[in-house]
Amino acid sequence: MNCILLPATHFSLPFAYIDAPSQIEHIQKVLDATVGDTLKIGQLDGKLGTAVIDKISEDSIDLREVHLSKQPPAKLDVTVILALPRPKVLRRLIMDMTALGVRDIVLINSYRTQKSYWQSPLLARLDEFVLEGLQQGVDTVAPRITLQKRFKPFVEDELASLITGHAIVAHPYSELSLMQYLQQLALLQSQSQSFLALTEGQTKTVLPSVVCIGAEGGWIDYEIDLFGAQGCQAVNIGSRVLRTETAVNVILGHWLLNSGC
Amino acid sequence: MNCILLPATHFSLPFAYIDAPSQIEHIQKVLDATVGDTLKIGQLDGKLGTAVIDKISEDSIDLREVHLSKQPPAKLDVTVILALPRPKVLRRLIMDMTALGVRDIVLINSYRTQKSYWQSPLLARLDEFVLEGLQQGVDTVAPRITLQKRFKPFVEDELASLITGHAIVAHPYSELSLMQYLQQLALLQSQSQSFLALTEGQTKTVLPSVVCIGAEGGWIDYEIDLFGAQGCQAVNIGSRVLRTETAVNVILGHWLLNSGC
Repeated sequence: MNCILLPATHFSLPFAYIDAPSQIEHIQKVLDATVGDTLKIGQLDGKLGTAVIDKISEDSIDLREVHLSKQPPAKLDVTVILALPRPKVLRRLIMDMTALGVRDIVLINSYRTQKSYWQSPLLARLDEFVLEGLQQGVDTVAPRITLQKRFKPFVEDELASLITGHAIVAHPYSELSLMQYLQQLALLQSQSQSFLALTEGQTKTVLPSVVCIGAEGGWIDYEIDLFGAQGCQAVNIGSRVLRTETAVNVILGHWLLNSGC
Repeated sequence: MNCILLPATHFSLPFAYIDAPSQIEHIQKVLDATVGDTLKIGQLDGKLGTAVIDKISEDSIDLREVHLSKQPPAKLDVTVILALPRPKVLRRLIMDMTALGVRDIVLINSYRTQKSYWQSPLLARLDEFVLEGLQQGVDTVAPRITLQKRFKPFVEDELASLITGHAIVAHPYSELSLMQYLQQLALLQSQSQSFLALTEGQTKTVLPSVVCIGAEGGWIDYEIDLFGAQGCQAVNIGSRVLRTETAVNVILGHWLLNSGC
């Protein structure tokens, strides 16, 4: 936790209180903080700031001198469509995508998603993983997460409306690499740019608005074809096969590094 | 495991055998493979290929028709200098850096590395984590890993010899972002490039040869200064604070995506 996030109900400026056991434990055991110490805090869906510990009791911590003045960082302008992964990696994936600032996450079914994954009790704990991600990434605004248990209707009827610019689908067997595709897009755009911008090397990076990433084993050809029919370009990220978590961080890292957040 | 890696001693072409319990279990329980099935295999420090299962017994699997013809993917031309992380995340970090293809890894001490981390029994299991990473990433060549328990002598006396081009040190409090720095380097380089290359948007990406990444809490100012004196530019990767694993994958992902491996 790099900040402690509290719901609006816990504020009565310039005071606030903490009653979540995980936050109380973190403040006492990890931060080793005591009365008089200053904490980094934030209001869910609001601003970031600081507060001073006024009183610590067993099941709550009272805060005074609450100052919330800093806007949370901008979200990454991207919708990630992720095949529902193994429950074991779901928590870290949701945490990481949240910490990275992804704005929209759609968890969908895929051929290689086992049916049992949809019964995982962890799916009821997404809000908790999101809170962990926000407190890690120092953000206050949760990503929107939707679950889509039916692949075909979602891709055929809803996906197109999410694509505001370009869209990619990660696929190790594509001939085209992500960077080749982005270079093609940048080249198309640069043909309308000024000579000055070109000589200054300021070809603007184009970032697709939708990124589709499979779980272990990736997408099957049928799925790639269906994505393709909706305008999603299949791209590879090299010959190395990465864990889903690693691939997600590598791909979204490109958005993070190039969005200037 | 996306391939099964065996040491040279286990080959007698066109035959080979598997005797590692983890590999035998994977073949039987995860791949659900049986006699006559083809496996993706590789020889440590050698080539990748395929083999057919000839016989399965309790503690070994015999292979026939072993064909090793494919070169492993190129390594990323980078040395990662990583503050020794918490043992809990060491396994995944080593696995991921190996799967991503990092050529050299230096685990060093830092102010925020707890002394107990150096006593972790996991440090004796690095070879095992590397093997997992190679089998994940479908590679046969292990990264070189060195341990440096003394920060100052390493940075002052050895670091400079590892920097063949440029070097960066990840630091959330740097004013300069990674991409701004890389753009500066590319701009310097492009001043010697042809007009044609420029108009085609082919400003070549410059990738520093050394990347220094702290563990949780990052580097302290003294460490950043010492790195700086050896020519390492401090750069941030945005205002969001990421887990060490996530930051490593985001940063090295840029090398992966831009090295054309």
